[in-house]
Amino acid sequence: MSEYRVEYDSMGEVRVPAGAKWRAQTQRAVENFPISGRALEPSHIAALGLVKAVAAEVNGELGVIDEELAEAIAQAAADVAENEHDAHFPVDVFQTGSGTSSNMNANEVIATLAEERLGRPVHPNDHVNASQSSNDVFPTSIHVAAATEVSFHLLPSLEHLAIALRTKAAEFDDVVKAGRTHLMDATPVTLGQEFGGYATQVEHGVVRVRRALDHVLELPLGGTAVGTGINTPPGFAEKAIAKLREATGLGFREAADHFEAQSAQDSIVELSGQLKVVAVSLNKIVNDLRWMGSGPRAGLGEINLPDLQPGSSIMPGKVNPVIPEATAMVAAQVIGNDAAITFAGASGSFELNVQLPLIARNILESIRLLAAVSRLLADRCVSGITADVDRLREYAESSPSIVTPLNRYVGYEEAAKIAKQALAERRTIREVVVERGHVAAGTLTEAQLDAALDVLSMTRPA
Amino acid sequence: MSEYRVEYDSMGEVRVPAGAKWRAQTQRAVENFPISGRALEPSHIAALGLVKAVAAEVNGELGVIDEELAEAIAQAAADVAENEHDAHFPVDVFQTGSGTSSNMNANEVIATLAEERLGRPVHPNDHVNASQSSNDVFPTSIHVAAATEVSFHLLPSLEHLAIALRTKAAEFDDVVKAGRTHLMDATPVTLGQEFGGYATQVEHGVVRVRRALDHVLELPLGGTAVGTGINTPPGFAEKAIAKLREATGLGFREAADHFEAQSAQDSIVELSGQLKVVAVSLNKIVNDLRWMGSGPRAGLGEINLPDLQPGSSIMPGKVNPVIPEATAMVAAQVIGNDAAITFAGASGSFELNVQLPLIARNILESIRLLAAVSRLLADRCVSGITADVDRLREYAESSPSIVTPLNRYVGYEEAAKIAKQALAERRTIREVVVERGHVAAGTLTEAQLDAALDVLSMTRPA
Amino acid sequence: MSEYRVEYDSMGEVRVPAGAKWRAQTQRAVENFPISGRALEPSHIAALGLVKAVAAEVNGELGVIDEELAEAIAQAAADVAENEHDAHFPVDVFQTGSGTSSNMNANEVIATLAEERLGRPVHPNDHVNASQSSNDVFPTSIHVAAATEVSFHLLPSLEHLAIALRTKAAEFDDVVKAGRTHLMDATPVTLGQEFGGYATQVEHGVVRVRRALDHVLELPLGGTAVGTGINTPPGFAEKAIAKLREATGLGFREAADHFEAQSAQDSIVELSGQLKVVAVSLNKIVNDLRWMGSGPRAGLGEINLPDLQPGSSIMPGKVNPVIPEATAMVAAQVIGNDAAITFAGASGSFELNVQLPLIARNILESIRLLAAVSRLLADRCVSGITADVDRLREYAESSPSIVTPLNRYVGYEEAAKIAKQALAERRTIREVVVERGHVAAGTLTEAQLDAALDVLSMTRPA
Amino acid sequence: MSEYRVEYDSMGEVRVPAGAKWRAQTQRAVENFPISGRALEPSHIAALGLVKAVAAEVNGELGVIDEELAEAIAQAAADVAENEHDAHFPVDVFQTGSGTSSNMNANEVIATLAEERLGRPVHPNDHVNASQSSNDVFPTSIHVAAATEVSFHLLPSLEHLAIALRTKAAEFDDVVKAGRTHLMDATPVTLGQEFGGYATQVEHGVVRVRRALDHVLELPLGGTAVGTGINTPPGFAEKAIAKLREATGLGFREAADHFEAQSAQDSIVELSGQLKVVAVSLNKIVNDLRWMGSGPRAGLGEINLPDLQPGSSIMPGKVNPVIPEATAMVAAQVIGNDAAITFAGASGSFELNVQLPLIARNILESIRLLAAVSRLLADRCVSGITADVDRLREYAESSPSIVTPLNRYVGYEEAAKIAKQALAERRTIREVVVERGHVAAGTLTEAQLDAALDVLSMTRPA
Repeated sequence: MSEYRVEYDSMGEVRVPAGAKWRAQTQRAVENFPISGRALEPSHIAALGLVKAVAAEVNGELGVIDEELAEAIAQAAADVAENEHDAHFPVDVFQTGSGTSSNMNANEVIATLAEERLGRPVHPNDHVNASQSSNDVFPTSIHVAAATEVSFHLLPSLEHLAIALRTKAAEFDDVVKAGRTHLMDATPVTLGQEFGGYATQVEHGVVRVRRALDHVLELPLGGTAVGTGINTPPGFAEKAIAKLREATGLGFREAADHFEAQSAQDSIVELSGQLKVVAVSLNKIVNDLRWMGSGPRAGLGEINLPDLQPGSSIMPGKVNPVIPEATAMVAAQVIGNDAAITFAGASGSFELNVQLPLIARNILESIRLLAAVSRLLADRCVSGITADVDRLREYAESSPSIVTPLNRYVGYEEAAKIAKQALAERRTIREVVVERGHVAAGTLTEAQLDAALDVLSMTRPA
Repeated sequence: MSEYRVEYDSMGEVRVPAGAKWRAQTQRAVENFPISGRALEPSHIAALGLVKAVAAEVNGELGVIDEELAEAIAQAAADVAENEHDAHFPVDVFQTGSGTSSNMNANEVIATLAEERLGRPVHPNDHVNASQSSNDVFPTSIHVAAATEVSFHLLPSLEHLAIALRTKAAEFDDVVKAGRTHLMDATPVTLGQEFGGYATQVEHGVVRVRRALDHVLELPLGGTAVGTGINTPPGFAEKAIAKLREATGLGFREAADHFEAQSAQDSIVELSGQLKVVAVSLNKIVNDLRWMGSGPRAGLGEINLPDLQPGSSIMPGKVNPVIPEATAMVAAQVIGNDAAITFAGASGSFELNVQLPLIARNILESIRLLAAVSRLLADRCVSGITADVDRLREYAESSPSIVTPLNRYVGYEEAAKIAKQALAERRTIREVVVERGHVAAGTLTEAQLDAALDVLSMTRPA
Repeated sequence: MSEYRVEYDSMGEVRVPAGAKWRAQTQRAVENFPISGRALEPSHIAALGLVKAVAAEVNGELGVIDEELAEAIAQAAADVAENEHDAHFPVDVFQTGSGTSSNMNANEVIATLAEERLGRPVHPNDHVNASQSSNDVFPTSIHVAAATEVSFHLLPSLEHLAIALRTKAAEFDDVVKAGRTHLMDATPVTLGQEFGGYATQVEHGVVRVRRALDHVLELPLGGTAVGTGINTPPGFAEKAIAKLREATGLGFREAADHFEAQSAQDSIVELSGQLKVVAVSLNKIVNDLRWMGSGPRAGLGEINLPDLQPGSSIMPGKVNPVIPEATAMVAAQVIGNDAAITFAGASGSFELNVQLPLIARNILESIRLLAAVSRLLADRCVSGITADVDRLREYAESSPSIVTPLNRYVGYEEAAKIAKQALAERRTIREVVVERGHVAAGTLTEAQLDAALDVLSMTRPA
Repeated sequence: MSEYRVEYDSMGEVRVPAGAKWRAQTQRAVENFPISGRALEPSHIAALGLVKAVAAEVNGELGVIDEELAEAIAQAAADVAENEHDAHFPVDVFQTGSGTSSNMNANEVIATLAEERLGRPVHPNDHVNASQSSNDVFPTSIHVAAATEVSFHLLPSLEHLAIALRTKAAEFDDVVKAGRTHLMDATPVTLGQEFGGYATQVEHGVVRVRRALDHVLELPLGGTAVGTGINTPPGFAEKAIAKLREATGLGFREAADHFEAQSAQDSIVELSGQLKVVAVSLNKIVNDLRWMGSGPRAGLGEINLPDLQPGSSIMPGKVNPVIPEATAMVAAQVIGNDAAITFAGASGSFELNVQLPLIARNILESIRLLAAVSRLLADRCVSGITADVDRLREYAESSPSIVTPLNRYVGYEEAAKIAKQALAERRTIREVVVERGHVAAGTLTEAQLDAALDVLSMTRPA
């Protein structure tokens, strides 16, 4: 009784673990690529399964394979698409650059599963892979996975975060605070205006990412080996992609130019670039949150973030802004993943880019990380933020920049003198204006002075 | 007789070169920032001038300053917008992060020019900068410059390149060649299909960049110091931006959220990311061109690129693909500039991002480089490419992958044996098929065999 | 009978899975950070265990905790250092930026294990974490893991690869081939010279990485919360680091400046930068290998790479350079990881960088990937490369650049004419030289001409 | 009388501006590459001149050209090395990837200058470029320029900055302040400890950059076209490099492996990576400075940075941390330039990397920017920093983390309760400890309590 069975492919025999649903080519790849220990992303395996399922259905409809076989393959592939057999996808991300090893892994596992259902031999290439090539199927699976994850996870998470921020913007509508430019005291804003700005950043992110989907929804399927569609029956791609649309509800369409679609991965580079913008936005937002929450005594202490866990293994009672920090780390990773994708995207040659599994890993991880952390940021941080209204107003009123509305009465240079004198003598702007005789001289009235120095009204000029 | 004159600002006296149109604050900046020796991009100075011109007009209309003064400032600013006074913009790119030094440089030069016209004092802050702040004007000027350069230089250049590639695609429509995947011989394509793919990449680039303009067309103008619009009269931004639309023909609009628009530079990060995709596309295209043109004897020798200059200072007669190389270097620079912009874009705090001049330099340089090199690539390289039709066909016919259409007759594994035997014995696929008895056995007829092995028809499956 | 037990920490009660060796703070972190699904790298857990073990020993020696307790903790920690309890380290990489959650995870698991041995309560903070803080222990563990993995895995792999390349350089010592500059035919080199260049690149990589270890060997341990070493007994760090040296054989030393060592992660940024150079080197090498192996018929066909697996799911008989491709993908990932580390490294504030777990993940993954792929590249690719000696010589002799040695006889410009004429008329350089009368005119003798045109001697000028 | 004269090269006639010292090939390049408008860095032109000068001397000594000619060329080249003819180096950075156009520019200008001295024809290739190729000379010139600029400008600037920081560290030795981890109040440090940490970062940067010079000091000179040294007389490289050592005082040496030295640019990629670490260090330092100087009223207000210029065009009296901001922008640019260099460095093929001018521009700009800004940061910012000693102490004493030394008396959990109670009730740690009965219970004495809570002694534990 052996723990191995013997399989073979066009290069000869291979020993495969007895219980493995994969076959020879997968096993070769397992042995050839002991590199990262990391397999395809689950969303990628699911997408690969889905593509195989619709391909089998269409192959049946078009008579490429018989209907019974088609149905068995389609059902097996559907199970793969449900992530039921992820354990049988052992091939490393760092493999052949076309993802052929993973495509064959899918073909072999599905062949085995279909064979189990059907009771007759199913061939990974001639049957499961019929009308397909790794070179159209694998990038198609990346697009399907990316579009699906973006549509059903990332965009809802970002929208959720935008709502949380917008809600806080409303809550903090009247909370006046010192503006800060160059980190230095500036004219007042409201805390609501700041949170509104964050919400807008995230909402713009939703638009950005959604637009990038346009090119991602174009699928290389039907191009087979080099884009010409060799070995694919007429109508195959159109029918298969219609089924993908139906299965996902997403507007997938056949690539207008199969040569562009297979030789370049520009649409994923574009999507990654837009994810990078979202990362940049989040980094800005959480840095502001961290600084506003700094303290409690030696920092700004403007807001309170929810306490989630003890902050220090040595300093008792310390609580840290852990969700903003996790978000900033996600931002760094997304920026790094984008650099990897950019490098990879620029590396294509002739009819194929051979950095596909690397591109897949990085784009799908970036999507997943941003989706997860945006939701956490909304639920475990933003929603629980409270403002120290008194301290915020105190800062606003003490900022020397509240002299700014006086420019129109006394000019920029006199205003600068007032601000400097107030600061040096630790007095209020109002006192210094009066002392310097501007009211006495009729440059402005006391009422105008009071109106000009009202910090809340400075945040909402007429 | 002195070479200097004395100017002053709110911090005191400064000595300024006698002939300089700038004043005290510019001079301080010149002395404070002897860093890169590089001033703002000319397109940036022009945009700053344009913004100042429309602001002056609106200030006149709204009575912020008197009409005569407004007109003098507007005319002076218009001259700046025509790049007539670039020599008076000496401030280094690496300066205060808000670009205040360059905004004041514009204010001072325009004040001096207006004073010369008008014969009465013009104040840089109280008059030229009226209703404005560096914090809304400077990022506005970046957006105006970027949108203008993209619309009037980059997009036309990319479209020009796309046409050149598309023209070649038509010319090479019937030129069959070996496909290459993993750099290894694959099933045939036409050279026209490859050039068509390149054209599509560039056309997609046009769409990408154009979409990114949407957010760039939103202008922070009117937000002044911190986004609240303090010290700006009602209607100022709306009127000024209408004039910008009129002056440029571009669809500028007031930022829907002035806090987002000033505290973040996400729209420029987005644009840069899309330029990066274009760079990635171009890098792929020119690498293919370089390899196809490699040789003349020890390379692929598939196409000829126009000879532009002697290639070597030591190897006589050598001619190199210099325009593709320059293009690849532009791609590298755009990728690098994007990394700088990404880092800068993530560095904002509260009401301001203080990496604005750096962001401006990098985005405007990237636009300029891509515009210039795309046009050169079209005119001095792509348009002059000729194909070595015979060699291309010879490669196509010798590729063992032309066995692929036989899969449906003999199956993948027998086809693999045929390909390997043909390669090992240096014989044609056709010979080996016949020898292995497939025609004799009736697996396929001679006619089917010939049809299956026709390389041009492989590029256009039914 | 519950599947949960109740644990508590300074913030209150937490329900923990019954079988978990971790306690309250770990559990909070598990719930707070459902982000990437990815835990610390195993090498990182091991390093954390090792640091805890030596700390416990020293705490015992110095009387901070009693000897029996110290021994129990040290033994438990040693088991963690052997990766025996990795399953009990569930905390996500994306967590609190200090790694406190993972430090507490280690403290809690070790406390539980020690308690099991000892039969009396062991406190994660007061006992296991005694004399330590996350802020010194966690970055110390990154340094220990990185230095260990570099020393025992990466450097030996790179040296192994260098030897494989150097061996091939010797084997191909006399194999003359066309040089290529700008991808165009240049004067001849030997294949051995090229492989020697690759070997040198990798050997320089060994030097680079080794030098970067210098700063990595400096450990923050002993600085505790903020670098001052608060709550650490005199001699603690010195003794603990001596034990780390003994345990690993590596030259760890106490940071000369604990404030630099904790507030910055520059030494890891440096190491990552050097790994990036290695990635760049490998990318260059494998691209050359891929191109030299391109074909078999429509490429350069200069060398053969070992066949490892069927190359295509559709094109029978195709074999691809899969190991070079996997290597190029590793290069892309290392470049991406470096971008993430750079961003993270620049994000520190005051006494702490709060991107530590992200930095750890990326540096340790980069080390691991490079170590694995360098060995594979050596064993499954480089060692099996064979040269097509005839074709290589044919290329060398047909290159028009072999005219170069004639410069000294006829000058650069006449030599250029000779080369162009030879190419245009598809004749040899020799023929054209004679025809143009240079021998007849006595410019050079036939013997000099033959000597000048000998391609192998061109690779080894006197 | 024409404004043009006619020159010719191996491709034919070219019209050159009458006053230009350059000739045909330069003119072709000017016309071929109207891309960036940016020429080689002056330090690069100087290095090219220097290499040409020593080459001419050695060519004279070895009899490759006659002595008189050699001397004329050497003197002309020496003038170029003094940047006396930069105006005659019009070729764009974005040109042929080998830098051949710039090498020929140097050859042509020097030939013209030598001809003017000598009164007889001097040939750019046969005389000035004798024994050389662009492929060894151009990368050599990059190394010479980089090593020179690093040694004579960057390292002294960094050392100057380190001294300025170290001086402040001594000055602030006793200035106690709140530590900050996660931006939250932590146990105390001194301001001197923080500045000491910054000094150490910069000092480590000096070490890093100096080490990277090791590989940069290896010169490709002598390898000519492809590394074999074809057309170079024996002893040429050795002698020429000895002269370079003498001229610069730097330890240049001939590349141990000319094939590595010309086909890869790894040593520059390494240097750039180390500059990136310096950028990361500076970014951290200036961010701390900016935050410590934030305010004056609504920020931390811990230190004062020197006032250099008015900060705002609208907010009178505002002063901003402009030098730290300029430094942060330099950091962003250096990070971006490193990304460009990394991409370029990975793009080499066979015997040449054809991104050399791009690599040169980016490395030399990074060196120049870092050198300039480090000195400015020292002189215009760091040296003038003053501390608000009272506020700093107040923060230190109010931080709840000063409870940390009590862990050993009351345990981590009770200490956490004390800290939280003190914070909630706005009372001091001391009061709460007493109230909770720890002194009464004899857990610790009043004297121990006072000693434990002394903030300055917390920064220097025994």
